[in-house]
Amino acid sequence: MAEYWSTLDVDLHLAVDPASGRRVGLEQALREAIRDGRLGAGTRLPSTRTLAAELGLARGTVSAAYDQLVAEGHLVATRGSGTRVAELGTQGAGNPSPAKATAGVSARGEPAGSPQRLAHNLRPGTPDLSHFPRAAWLRAARRAVNAAPNEAFGYGDPRGRIELRRALAEYLGRARGVRTDAERIIIVSGAVQGLALLGQVLGGTFAMEDPYIPLFHEVVRSHGAQVAPLPVDDDGARVDLLRGPDFDGAGTAVVTPSHQYPIGSTLHPARRQALVEWARAGRRVIVEDDYDGEFRYDRQPVGAVQGMAPERTVYLGTASKTLGPAVRLAWLVLPEHLVGPLTEAKRHADHQSESLGQLTLAEFIASHDYDRHIRAARLRYRRRRDLLAERLHTRAGRPAAGFALGGIAAGLHALVRLEPAGMTEAEVLKRAAEFDLDLEGLGDLWHTPPANTLASSAARPQGIVVGFGSPTEAAYPRALDALVRTLSWR
Amino acid sequence: MAEYWSTLDVDLHLAVDPASGRRVGLEQALREAIRDGRLGAGTRLPSTRTLAAELGLARGTVSAAYDQLVAEGHLVATRGSGTRVAELGTQGAGNPSPAKATAGVSARGEPAGSPQRLAHNLRPGTPDLSHFPRAAWLRAARRAVNAAPNEAFGYGDPRGRIELRRALAEYLGRARGVRTDAERIIIVSGAVQGLALLGQVLGGTFAMEDPYIPLFHEVVRSHGAQVAPLPVDDDGARVDLLRGPDFDGAGTAVVTPSHQYPIGSTLHPARRQALVEWARAGRRVIVEDDYDGEFRYDRQPVGAVQGMAPERTVYLGTASKTLGPAVRLAWLVLPEHLVGPLTEAKRHADHQSESLGQLTLAEFIASHDYDRHIRAARLRYRRRRDLLAERLHTRAGRPAAGFALGGIAAGLHALVRLEPAGMTEAEVLKRAAEFDLDLEGLGDLWHTPPANTLASSAARPQGIVVGFGSPTEAAYPRALDALVRTLSWR
Repeated sequence: MAEYWSTLDVDLHLAVDPASGRRVGLEQALREAIRDGRLGAGTRLPSTRTLAAELGLARGTVSAAYDQLVAEGHLVATRGSGTRVAELGTQGAGNPSPAKATAGVSARGEPAGSPQRLAHNLRPGTPDLSHFPRAAWLRAARRAVNAAPNEAFGYGDPRGRIELRRALAEYLGRARGVRTDAERIIIVSGAVQGLALLGQVLGGTFAMEDPYIPLFHEVVRSHGAQVAPLPVDDDGARVDLLRGPDFDGAGTAVVTPSHQYPIGSTLHPARRQALVEWARAGRRVIVEDDYDGEFRYDRQPVGAVQGMAPERTVYLGTASKTLGPAVRLAWLVLPEHLVGPLTEAKRHADHQSESLGQLTLAEFIASHDYDRHIRAARLRYRRRRDLLAERLHTRAGRPAAGFALGGIAAGLHALVRLEPAGMTEAEVLKRAAEFDLDLEGLGDLWHTPPANTLASSAARPQGIVVGFGSPTEAAYPRALDALVRTLSWR
Repeated sequence: MAEYWSTLDVDLHLAVDPASGRRVGLEQALREAIRDGRLGAGTRLPSTRTLAAELGLARGTVSAAYDQLVAEGHLVATRGSGTRVAELGTQGAGNPSPAKATAGVSARGEPAGSPQRLAHNLRPGTPDLSHFPRAAWLRAARRAVNAAPNEAFGYGDPRGRIELRRALAEYLGRARGVRTDAERIIIVSGAVQGLALLGQVLGGTFAMEDPYIPLFHEVVRSHGAQVAPLPVDDDGARVDLLRGPDFDGAGTAVVTPSHQYPIGSTLHPARRQALVEWARAGRRVIVEDDYDGEFRYDRQPVGAVQGMAPERTVYLGTASKTLGPAVRLAWLVLPEHLVGPLTEAKRHADHQSESLGQLTLAEFIASHDYDRHIRAARLRYRRRRDLLAERLHTRAGRPAAGFALGGIAAGLHALVRLEPAGMTEAEVLKRAAEFDLDLEGLGDLWHTPPANTLASSAARPQGIVVGFGSPTEAAYPRALDALVRTLSWR
């Protein structure tokens, strides 16, 4: 006999075994629910009157069962606040401890909870999360949720909310030179999902920059496409190689034209032209990963490649660097012929992205809060960039030879290139750890990590990716000190 | 030469062709930006002073360019509010019209914008969206976002926020009899994503109930698994057939034990037992789609099957029926051995679900707002269910023979079974349309739609799925009137 009961506050499903008799059966059921954690520590139980009525038992039966469990230490009866499940330590074993539940790390090293971190963090990948615009975001959420029609809380267009797609069409046009209307935009849950859907729909071989983010290579591969690594240099991706034998079957090229990740170079205008010609010649697709295009510090050509060839380019933008990765909002701007297949893939992946965040971002953009937020962030990151350049070039007590700073025209990271005369990457990372500083080596970002030999190390540039956007304002100067000390090796 | 300029409010990327001379080049660049929609109607331009400073031009040059565009009708100069892009109709062709941007329907008939709807809606699939708890949700969001640590805005555990996983472990334990701790829960973006990831990770053949939601069959297939349709009857899924030749290779069974969709039956206790034995015998996996388990109206055994065999069952729960599909929050409770592979698949799908909604739901559950909301909804839907039963059984002016009402013990939908003596499904749907009533026929929910012949129609039960949860409170009585009239055929 399973019974269902409820109190003013909580629902509970209880299986009372009729063979044990009513009181004992109820006791057993409650005891089991407490032991296996279904009734958590501190949970208030219904009054004996309520539970008796719900279960069709005499009130005295329920009281007796409660008394027994209080006696056992499973429950605590407090005058005025009723009967509650006892706190940990005062009850029997078997209740999973919150401490245990906190621990644990996911399959591939993503931290769960609060992992142990080094004191200083210049690891790239996230903006300064302390500047997430909590108050402005909540205001926008309030306006958006209150103004939303009822249907906004239901299933909708797999492409996402029309309010956000319209706001983005306008924003991306003026801020990034993207040519589109709302109909060709699909809201996705981060760049990872964008690449996953593209891998699935386009298939074949993707030419992808190398070095790049290894997870992105993996995502494309795990969704059915092949990856051919495309070298990069100081002028961005080696577009000239696309016509060579290594990329014979490639139908798609994934590039970061405005600020190559992690090298930091900008795709040269001649290469942009060549890339577009390559795509047009073979009806191929350019995927433009514009992950930090909003953060440019020096006047230079930085419009989206998409503006040159909207019919051959998928523009992939994101709020991960402007707001924070946790909002999981990114957008694909698609050539007409890909809208149908990508919409269908999105529908089969998760039907649509979460709508309330989309409505909030639409409101955030429409009110120009988004522009203001980006402007303030750009100023802040430019100051950090300037300070980084200043400290590394002129201020490092004893001038730190053996490296050069690059990729600083834009974005939230720069590249410290290590020269053969100086320290190796491994040496720098070891020294950094001694100064309690978290850094990322270029070595982790190659498509095929080099074998751990001198020969292969020598063949590839060595470098350190410095994420100057990651720390808080207050922590940045000290992190920079640690970096300067790390690099001041003689 | 591409230049970047900015105003107090907006960012804009402009490519000024130096070959045209400064004034003409600026005019052309602005004209083009307006024509192709990058500068939307109503957008305020920067002052001539600001733009001149940004571009390093004389102010007079910018003024002259603005004057020219005002003369052409592209811009409008208003005393006090500066210069703006002209509204539609007053400017040249080529600017995509907002009306056009609104229209359009996505690849598979999902409505974009506001499609034409029938006056009365009893189509199943969503709860009453007018009861989305906007105010309580916004309050929870405010508390959650303000209390969140900075790291909550960054990348996190692909399984989702620990706060929500802990709250769910407690809630699902007491309310649904699910046995788990937070470590075995993965937050996914709706049931669709849950099934997509399971299809991808488990592969092989999925036995899936028939009838069921066709999209779910498609999702599993498009993620690499096969589907074998599993018949259902008044005792739920025909679990006995799983040992027969049609399911020889099936390693996974997807079932809706608490309220079969769309038949509405509850999986019989003996079949639950048999299902668990089948799974244990072959180390197979049960996927329990518990989409509306919170809404039970009569006392009966309805705990999750997962509680009987946590090591062989994936429990799939969702907030789509309790809150609304738009929040895209669902959860997989996994056997230990599947946590790693599913976490990895989630990481490759979209890294993690959006965090702010997760934190909000965690707060909503912890404050018991979730329980209160569900309780109020359950009461409301029970009244609707009672009214439905009353109207169809006793009140239909001339008693409406030829059908029977079933599946009403739980959930947000019921099944009107059409008896051979009465109208066919097609006849009912046609009549419903005449009464301006939107309904779903059982015929759309079979794994293989029957050929449009009398023979195949006769072989399958005919019925109408009545989504009594869908309309607003105010609209429900009229929708019910329309249903009664539709079914009162003699």
